Amino acid sequence: MATATETDAMRRAVALSGRALGDTAPNPVVGCVILDAEGVRVGEGWHQRAGGPHAEVHALFAAGERARGGTALVTLEPCNHTGRTGPCAQALIEAGIARVVYAVADPNPSASGGAATLRAAGVDVEGGLLRAEAEAVNIAWLTSVRLGRPYVRWKYAATLDGRIAAADGTSRWISSADSRADVHRLRAESDAVVVGSGTLRADDPHLAVRGIDGVTQPLRVVVDTHARTTVDARVLDDAAPTLIAVGKDADTAHLPDVDVVRLPYATGGPDTDGRRERAGLDVTALLAELHGRGVRSVLLEGGPTLAGAFVAAGAVDTVTAYLAPVLLGAGPHALADAGISTLAQALRLDVTDVARLGPDLRVTAVPAVPHPTQES
Amino acid sequence: MATATETDAMRRAVALSGRALGDTAPNPVVGCVILDAEGVRVGEGWHQRAGGPHAEVHALFAAGERARGGTALVTLEPCNHTGRTGPCAQALIEAGIARVVYAVADPNPSASGGAATLRAAGVDVEGGLLRAEAEAVNIAWLTSVRLGRPYVRWKYAATLDGRIAAADGTSRWISSADSRADVHRLRAESDAVVVGSGTLRADDPHLAVRGIDGVTQPLRVVVDTHARTTVDARVLDDAAPTLIAVGKDADTAHLPDVDVVRLPYATGGPDTDGRRERAGLDVTALLAELHGRGVRSVLLEGGPTLAGAFVAAGAVDTVTAYLAPVLLGAGPHALADAGISTLAQALRLDVTDVARLGPDLRVTAVPAVPHPTQES
Repeated sequence: MATATETDAMRRAVALSGRALGDTAPNPVVGCVILDAEGVRVGEGWHQRAGGPHAEVHALFAAGERARGGTALVTLEPCNHTGRTGPCAQALIEAGIARVVYAVADPNPSASGGAATLRAAGVDVEGGLLRAEAEAVNIAWLTSVRLGRPYVRWKYAATLDGRIAAADGTSRWISSADSRADVHRLRAESDAVVVGSGTLRADDPHLAVRGIDGVTQPLRVVVDTHARTTVDARVLDDAAPTLIAVGKDADTAHLPDVDVVRLPYATGGPDTDGRRERAGLDVTALLAELHGRGVRSVLLEGGPTLAGAFVAAGAVDTVTAYLAPVLLGAGPHALADAGISTLAQALRLDVTDVARLGPDLRVTAVPAVPHPTQES
Repeated sequence: MATATETDAMRRAVALSGRALGDTAPNPVVGCVILDAEGVRVGEGWHQRAGGPHAEVHALFAAGERARGGTALVTLEPCNHTGRTGPCAQALIEAGIARVVYAVADPNPSASGGAATLRAAGVDVEGGLLRAEAEAVNIAWLTSVRLGRPYVRWKYAATLDGRIAAADGTSRWISSADSRADVHRLRAESDAVVVGSGTLRADDPHLAVRGIDGVTQPLRVVVDTHARTTVDARVLDDAAPTLIAVGKDADTAHLPDVDVVRLPYATGGPDTDGRRERAGLDVTALLAELHGRGVRSVLLEGGPTLAGAFVAAGAVDTVTAYLAPVLLGAGPHALADAGISTLAQALRLDVTDVARLGPDLRVTAVPAVPHPTQES
């Protein structure tokens, strides 16, 4: 059983892990706190970026000789494999750590076994301390390991009556400055930001993170079936990398220096019809492409048709709705063409958080039942 | 200055006043607590229904002789006029009350003057104690006095993406049992419940209050421009009174025993066009008709076109949105045709309350700026 001191230290480790959200792909976020033999905190650290030292290495370096005979609190089971950095289990053993407490077992087959290695070396190992808290911070990476595709957060800003713009297309600004700042935080915590070509044409968004220091800019992804992006689009500047996903036979001659990926159209399955085909590219193929590029978390920013395609594909893992206390009574809606025609087919969610942001509400919700794709 | 004992007693009086919401039209809700000369609570009461004793009379009756030399805490300035019951100011004087503390001054010209009468009789009078709290409970009646029309609460239940039904029209049940029970509370607190003929045809709603004992059933009002209500509509049963509002030249021969009122069509003003004319009856005329019938509070239950007409008329005083954590991506919306074409014209609200009701959110909001009609 973990002591109260260990629990407090783990809580600190969980908080530390969250500092690097959006910066570590394709790796998880991990935090670590080292207690000496008397239970005094002597080192802490977190995994800051892929290719850099793991959390344990940072924390052991800070603790130095005081780690000997001490306890390591780690949010994720220490790795046992040699990647770009050495295995953490070995580093903990060599530092003379007597006890390791981790929150979440490593679900990644190539990394697991750290606990067994530690035990074999005589280290006392305990798992599961503050597991739920640690999982919540690492949910994107854990989900991506489980599903083999990036975790998808769909974000939208709408009026109380569900409109994302007025009838004439005006939408700046429906949501408040507080909400828009919060969106930059979500972008900063994501590995990629995805929009459709309709949003690109309507808003010419920049999609890079502003107002947050030291951020790893997310990959900007435009789902642009017919390659209608023009070279003067703001999203093609050098503030962040950008990927344009087009249909397999789209003409991209006007985009010579742009990173373009060709994907199949949305086809296959009993619900495919003309409407779906018009909806664009195959969402599963898009996510597979992003996963292959190391993207573990996606912020889906719109618009309604693309969001509908993601919902239809069972590829929305969490929803963040910024609801402005505004009524319009006309204009486009947050979500369209999700393949849902009757209430029994509706995507039911559980609200996990409600917050006031300035005048707005931020509602966070997750699917109430596992997606069909999660059952495969 | 009121004492802490008096403040506590006023808080009780405010709570008592709320018990009769929906039962007192065309009168306000009022609560009263009597303290004896030593500050001990010796009587309390509230106005329970129009034609019945006022709150002060109930409380004085309960206190009996112990009221002499005591203090009356009343949520609304005691009346000075002789209506169906005698003036309360006189009753307080005759009971020997030495001090009267009220929360809200009576805005009704025919009733004001109670404070002056009391002072003239040597009673110590103080106004304004817990004024905001008392006004909040009595907001419908106070607003109706100020505007000369009933207070309108627009209630709707929608998905997180703003749909009130799926594409095929299915809508039972988008919101939870908790939300639906809360709607019955809102109905019970209202003098009238208003729906459009589209909602009547789609849902055949009953609109009476269920599950609340001793309730005064609200007047059920159907806005039915073309008199398409049929005699077998559930709303025409005898569970509550019903009024059908039709266009001035509608054919109502098939509704021989129904209370029907003929109203002008929505016309006039620069924003009138074919679309608005189709929207139906003149909202201002409807509210004037209801006000003339003693209705002080209206619960507007839908559908989207009627709600749009009310918003366009500046006749929505508060919005109660039941948001179910459900996504549909298709289907009708909560609000339509409000005459708003660009974001600058949007009706901006202030959120006054957010509550969780089972899985749902209940968001209450009021217009952020006075309606144009409130400025007249």
